[in-house]
Amino acid sequence: DIVAAVKRRLFKTGPLFGKKAIVTSGPTHEPIDPVRYIANRSSGKQGHAIAAELAKLGCEVTLVSGPTRLEAPNGVKLVEIESARDMLVACQNALPADIAVCAAAVADWRVDNEAGQKLKKDGSGQIPELKLTENPDILATLSQAGDQRPKLVVGFAAETQNIREYASAKRIRKQCDWIVANDVSPSTGTFGGNENKVHVIARNQCEDWPTLSKKEVAKRLAAKIADYLKED
Amino acid sequence: DIVAAVKRRLFKTGPLFGKKAIVTSGPTHEPIDPVRYIANRSSGKQGHAIAAELAKLGCEVTLVSGPTRLEAPNGVKLVEIESARDMLVACQNALPADIAVCAAAVADWRVDNEAGQKLKKDGSGQIPELKLTENPDILATLSQAGDQRPKLVVGFAAETQNIREYASAKRIRKQCDWIVANDVSPSTGTFGGNENKVHVIARNQCEDWPTLSKKEVAKRLAAKIADYLKED
Repeated sequence: DIVAAVKRRLFKTGPLFGKKAIVTSGPTHEPIDPVRYIANRSSGKQGHAIAAELAKLGCEVTLVSGPTRLEAPNGVKLVEIESARDMLVACQNALPADIAVCAAAVADWRVDNEAGQKLKKDGSGQIPELKLTENPDILATLSQAGDQRPKLVVGFAAETQNIREYASAKRIRKQCDWIVANDVSPSTGTFGGNENKVHVIARNQCEDWPTLSKKEVAKRLAAKIADYLKED
Repeated sequence: DIVAAVKRRLFKTGPLFGKKAIVTSGPTHEPIDPVRYIANRSSGKQGHAIAAELAKLGCEVTLVSGPTRLEAPNGVKLVEIESARDMLVACQNALPADIAVCAAAVADWRVDNEAGQKLKKDGSGQIPELKLTENPDILATLSQAGDQRPKLVVGFAAETQNIREYASAKRIRKQCDWIVANDVSPSTGTFGGNENKVHVIARNQCEDWPTLSKKEVAKRLAAKIADYLKED
């Protein structure tokens, strides 16, 4: 659109001008039957803020997002999906890219025996069985994409305990460059809230950031990304 | 609030002035762990519209609603809940009432083995098992509440096949007075959409209403309720 084009021209001199980023955001919805699904409490606020801040630095951003209540940020191409499988396809369609930031809360599992018709409670007391199966791993797929691998792949870890330890193991397992780990225990109000307290974990480094607005976390992360690609 | 009070005074002469209604609306969210839950595609539009139309007829309305993107209608007391269990408690707290309209898409089942910490995908390939258990049946509970039973109890049936047959059986099973049955197959766009095609099923009667806006369905249903209570 016009606003996006003007922005891009405005920010032509931005440190990320000429770079392409994929940002994932929001939850995924995994269908159980035509009316029911498995969801999670991600609001998409952090992922959308990162997409917005990267765009402000001149980056060409594709935001692949599950269902949220948020508007698409200015100057960002929004691709709306529901399931993890759809999100993977949308990310692969957005390659090649220099940067991938996987901030979405992708469902680890989906229902294997999705029903074509609404599951009925028929009064017999019989309870349906939900067989789960693992979803494709979008962060690992992008991190291990060979020729197609973005130069910088950033994952997120939403944890409720042993945050840094779990996040560090996740970084190695997925083979991404950085993990942004945050505490999403209900008591922190991170999910759905406007603030975030994160640890940014790289191969030889762990930065503990203070509690910041999600917008400020996004700003700092975008600046750190621009720095990294400059050095490179 | 003031607006509600003014409305009530304005509509003092409404056909439902002096009556109390409980209306349920929206989906319920059934927790799997601190971040995941089972949801459904109900937008709450139909339930909220019914609450609004009953209030316009002078009725004192308590709207018990799961998470939606909607504002509380004017002149209606909104009680926000997440799970089916919470919804039942909120409905019972709103008794006694003359009318109950159960338009919420209450989850039939919840997860029995809800986890206190986020379920982890640890790379072992192990897949968690979701054990389901039946939720309390709010429509049946209100329909069979003895002394506390509202004079008129209206249930909703969201079906994807054999709509009238399933709905009629449901009315008898639950012991409610009317069932408003609608087709929520994805192809109809009912869930989340602004239109609805319903069948209103009573003991000796089935009215097939044309495709109408959800607001118009609400208006007609509120008028039908007022008529019923007048005859009574």
